[in-house]
Amino acid sequence: MSTLPFDDDLKLFALMKEQLYSAVLCDALDQAGFRQQAMRADIRPIYPDAVVVGRALTMQSVDVYQPEENVYDKEISAVDSLKPGDVMVASTQQSTRTCLWGELLSTAATVRGANGAVIDGYTRDVRLIQQMGFPLFATGMYPVDSAGRSEVISYNCTINCGGVTVSPGDVIFGDYDGVIVIPKEALREVVERAVAKVEGENITREELRKGLTLRDVFNKYGVL
Amino acid sequence: MSTLPFDDDLKLFALMKEQLYSAVLCDALDQAGFRQQAMRADIRPIYPDAVVVGRALTMQSVDVYQPEENVYDKEISAVDSLKPGDVMVASTQQSTRTCLWGELLSTAATVRGANGAVIDGYTRDVRLIQQMGFPLFATGMYPVDSAGRSEVISYNCTINCGGVTVSPGDVIFGDYDGVIVIPKEALREVVERAVAKVEGENITREELRKGLTLRDVFNKYGVL
Amino acid sequence: MSTLPFDDDLKLFALMKEQLYSAVLCDALDQAGFRQQAMRADIRPIYPDAVVVGRALTMQSVDVYQPEENVYDKEISAVDSLKPGDVMVASTQQSTRTCLWGELLSTAATVRGANGAVIDGYTRDVRLIQQMGFPLFATGMYPVDSAGRSEVISYNCTINCGGVTVSPGDVIFGDYDGVIVIPKEALREVVERAVAKVEGENITREELRKGLTLRDVFNKYGVL
Amino acid sequence: MSTLPFDDDLKLFALMKEQLYSAVLCDALDQAGFRQQAMRADIRPIYPDAVVVGRALTMQSVDVYQPEENVYDKEISAVDSLKPGDVMVASTQQSTRTCLWGELLSTAATVRGANGAVIDGYTRDVRLIQQMGFPLFATGMYPVDSAGRSEVISYNCTINCGGVTVSPGDVIFGDYDGVIVIPKEALREVVERAVAKVEGENITREELRKGLTLRDVFNKYGVL
Amino acid sequence: MSTLPFDDDLKLFALMKEQLYSAVLCDALDQAGFRQQAMRADIRPIYPDAVVVGRALTMQSVDVYQPEENVYDKEISAVDSLKPGDVMVASTQQSTRTCLWGELLSTAATVRGANGAVIDGYTRDVRLIQQMGFPLFATGMYPVDSAGRSEVISYNCTINCGGVTVSPGDVIFGDYDGVIVIPKEALREVVERAVAKVEGENITREELRKGLTLRDVFNKYGVL
Amino acid sequence: MSTLPFDDDLKLFALMKEQLYSAVLCDALDQAGFRQQAMRADIRPIYPDAVVVGRALTMQSVDVYQPEENVYDKEISAVDSLKPGDVMVASTQQSTRTCLWGELLSTAATVRGANGAVIDGYTRDVRLIQQMGFPLFATGMYPVDSAGRSEVISYNCTINCGGVTVSPGDVIFGDYDGVIVIPKEALREVVERAVAKVEGENITREELRKGLTLRDVFNKYGVL
Repeated sequence: MSTLPFDDDLKLFALMKEQLYSAVLCDALDQAGFRQQAMRADIRPIYPDAVVVGRALTMQSVDVYQPEENVYDKEISAVDSLKPGDVMVASTQQSTRTCLWGELLSTAATVRGANGAVIDGYTRDVRLIQQMGFPLFATGMYPVDSAGRSEVISYNCTINCGGVTVSPGDVIFGDYDGVIVIPKEALREVVERAVAKVEGENITREELRKGLTLRDVFNKYGVL
Repeated sequence: MSTLPFDDDLKLFALMKEQLYSAVLCDALDQAGFRQQAMRADIRPIYPDAVVVGRALTMQSVDVYQPEENVYDKEISAVDSLKPGDVMVASTQQSTRTCLWGELLSTAATVRGANGAVIDGYTRDVRLIQQMGFPLFATGMYPVDSAGRSEVISYNCTINCGGVTVSPGDVIFGDYDGVIVIPKEALREVVERAVAKVEGENITREELRKGLTLRDVFNKYGVL
Repeated sequence: MSTLPFDDDLKLFALMKEQLYSAVLCDALDQAGFRQQAMRADIRPIYPDAVVVGRALTMQSVDVYQPEENVYDKEISAVDSLKPGDVMVASTQQSTRTCLWGELLSTAATVRGANGAVIDGYTRDVRLIQQMGFPLFATGMYPVDSAGRSEVISYNCTINCGGVTVSPGDVIFGDYDGVIVIPKEALREVVERAVAKVEGENITREELRKGLTLRDVFNKYGVL
Repeated sequence: MSTLPFDDDLKLFALMKEQLYSAVLCDALDQAGFRQQAMRADIRPIYPDAVVVGRALTMQSVDVYQPEENVYDKEISAVDSLKPGDVMVASTQQSTRTCLWGELLSTAATVRGANGAVIDGYTRDVRLIQQMGFPLFATGMYPVDSAGRSEVISYNCTINCGGVTVSPGDVIFGDYDGVIVIPKEALREVVERAVAKVEGENITREELRKGLTLRDVFNKYGVL
Repeated sequence: MSTLPFDDDLKLFALMKEQLYSAVLCDALDQAGFRQQAMRADIRPIYPDAVVVGRALTMQSVDVYQPEENVYDKEISAVDSLKPGDVMVASTQQSTRTCLWGELLSTAATVRGANGAVIDGYTRDVRLIQQMGFPLFATGMYPVDSAGRSEVISYNCTINCGGVTVSPGDVIFGDYDGVIVIPKEALREVVERAVAKVEGENITREELRKGLTLRDVFNKYGVL
Repeated sequence: MSTLPFDDDLKLFALMKEQLYSAVLCDALDQAGFRQQAMRADIRPIYPDAVVVGRALTMQSVDVYQPEENVYDKEISAVDSLKPGDVMVASTQQSTRTCLWGELLSTAATVRGANGAVIDGYTRDVRLIQQMGFPLFATGMYPVDSAGRSEVISYNCTINCGGVTVSPGDVIFGDYDGVIVIPKEALREVVERAVAKVEGENITREELRKGLTLRDVFNKYGVL
């Protein structure tokens, strides 16, 4: 019987952050039949040790070419609706004209208890956000404000972030290897498989260090 | 009345380096009506804390496909003409065949008092340049010499670097978020606006930390 | 008469690692008439101080779209055939669907005495590999396993890695500036020229630091 | 005194279609100080002799990833609002997932008197639209319907189409060389200059055919 | 009851070629829940009226960098195994170094009764193939032979062609709008839906031509 | 003994135009050891039947960002120096900001007896040039004049056009399959091999049409 805290999201996310990593979760997703769950490789953490785990709150922006009224309206609503354990996941349709995120939004998100953010687009104020220890993943840095350049048109909707479909409530895991999306209905299965696989890899590693060939080890344990 | 040292370039650049950053300068450029002043996001500092401020001395290279005589002639003249407070800004037309900059040029530039360099192209000797503390921004690293591959065809001319038009004497500011170009005629207005905006952001940040929602803070101060 | 240890590969590789760097080797290759020997600039070390030198053992993978039997067969044979002083050099035809390398393969390679790996494709387990001090060069990180996505179809064959043709036994040198390939028949000439050029650059650098212009120094020594 | 029918849009558009072409209009825009008015070169006519002239009615779509209610609502309103002499100009933010235009929309636009369409995105039913003689410009063909893939979010707004800012009422001219945008306030000046330039080119061409060198002709007339 | 000749592939393909087109088949695939079945838009017919329908015989090539023995072996086997009603569908992993198809292979395929070919890669001898009336779809033309540059590594396997997974026996339909893949198990449903939809569009078109607005027609028939 | 008119360039070019084509010349270049002689596949003829053969007169342009004096000076000299049998071959470093060629230059080139032009960049006035029957190859169409956007910086120099190194006097052959470059020293060998290969292919084609399998034909003649 599983002893993982599936009845308490925040405890489960903390445990995943401590014991798991994106590669093993990706293998577990493969086993569970979800084979398109890793975001494009150009979505990177802003500092090497950033790890993000949490429930997706989604947001979609679009490029605009004229000043709009109430331009920040939906973005403000989205950020203010963040709850403890949430991760802001935003698609900009890969805009290169502006950035969607910055230090003030990171501060607001932190105050609401959010666990981090994943932006398929640029961010700014990166050194300050790094100093806050806010785990932010983005495609790059760009100092240009969004007013009159892009606008959030909806949130809490299904989006495509980094090539992966993300629905509100899906679980996000990101570390130095990349960002993956665990469909909410598969969370239990995926985490249990990942925990088991970590143990298998530890044994394999020990055998290799003792000098066994890769073929011997693979024939014995079937793990690579 | 402004107390900023607009009559002394070197003092002004030092003050900008200490108190300002690319994002707030970019917002000030927006307010002043200059909305296309940030270079492409793939021009990056070679070390995270690199900050460059100064007057642009421009240089244009072009790919060549045969050995030329006096191949380094204009590049040498350009580097030797650097003065204290200058920043070398070079366009390679995004060549991926060679690099335009390296450690010896960085050493020569430092000796002349230059404040750094921004290359829309590759550089080499990156670890050595980083150890010198020379703030260099480039699109990547590549160990290939330029002789017979590219050649500086003019300097002190209007160029396009990272998608932005740069004329000699424009002011360059680069940090971890990116590189921006301040047209020389707008320098005073932009710096004054940026200094004012930094204060507004400090207040906003404090209010957010106290737990106000983003909407409350935005309604109260209009800054995001 | 050269006193470089050309009769002992491992000693020569150690000496190259200590005294030379990719830029000077690239200049020496140019002098020797090999002008297309630097891999594309997007093949990067996974940590800044990674330096790799050694004999290429090559490997070629290809994307697949259905589960295959014995999918790891040739990859296992390739890794198990690594000898001391070898560097694994792998082409994935720039696949963005999966990664070709990870921590267990790095462990197996280290145990066999390999000096590092260069992958024209993605890797995973990057933080662990960095902690091992295994000098790995790749185009990026991606947490997705290769089973059912790509397969090694041959090894010890001529490949194209990062735009450069690599044959088994060619010598690889990679550092922060990039990765170059020294054709095996040119190794002696290239290393001797590079050792000589390092000395010339030291003199040039000293002269520049004394305040000589770049033109004076270039006219005097002809090195830039 | 100009005898061009500037008081009657439809007559003026007909005259432009008969006597002018995109290259000479582009030169006239240059002379008038508008130097960024040609759309990207991948927006092409669907048949070689397609020529479009008219007033822009703009439309902006965005990719979506879930079924929406009333998904065609704004697109239908936009098409139904077309008036004689209008050209539909649509931006998809360069979506490659779907197409924005097809034969039924072309039929509806023709019935309303529209002069053609320019789509920064894909279209479908291309052979049928060509048979109708409806001058359509697009980035390519793709048979995939937009329902659940993209949605028009606004029309009659300022958009970016093919890299050029287009406001409602700007005048569009497209032929085999490409598509240009004439800001509405510059229409009179640009058309008058273009008509004059066509005459200069006719003389130059005659002189070249008589055997004069390009230098002689250029020195004599200053036109190239 | 359907009167379509589902018991005779060749008759069914002929009927599809005459009555259907890629856009309506794509809508029918959408209705049947297959929403990723259109190949990338850069796979184009080599002449405007080319239409291809048939059963996929798949082939996978990979770039190579040295002369191999029996380099054409699997390619010859694949072409010789073509049967009446087959369409050769080949992936080159988007190689730009060579072409995979040409006039002699088109001649051989025609003699075996094949209906055409779809290549995710380049072809050559294009004018000759066009004169033969062989419906060929490819990403471009390139005159470079494959010997020593690419090699067919397997055929009759699952491949990815133009971004769509294709298994042997899936049904291919290509025309001027693009190429789509109908999974073999969905053929009957998709063709029946498409035949029905063609009728609905005919009515819609008539109503529009009578002057009804798009909104009226859409409210009445729900087809766009 | 060869009866080809190698002592008379114009006759030889006419014979090549009539009897040969780019694919067979490319195979002959392969046999002669020249394996990188085909330009990138995006350099296309402006009309399907365009065929160009002749001696390269090369030209190099570079993007500029300010008005220059005598901006057309070197371009005029280059065009005026064209001789019968020449082909203008121009590199723009793949500029997308302007076009390098147009109708007046085509007229001037035709008057001097030039055989056509190959531009690694855009052209304009395409329909007019097509009506002239001037065989022009380019990467696309764009109506924007070069003044203040690009400038020819040298001609009669070694350039890179479409990824191939071209020196003055090399022989250019372009048709619907693409453009190839025959190094001048290899012209005789390449043309003789190509003429021989055309005969082999004719026999192979006949055998295939008689119903022989590809394997039978290949085993018998070794041509594919």
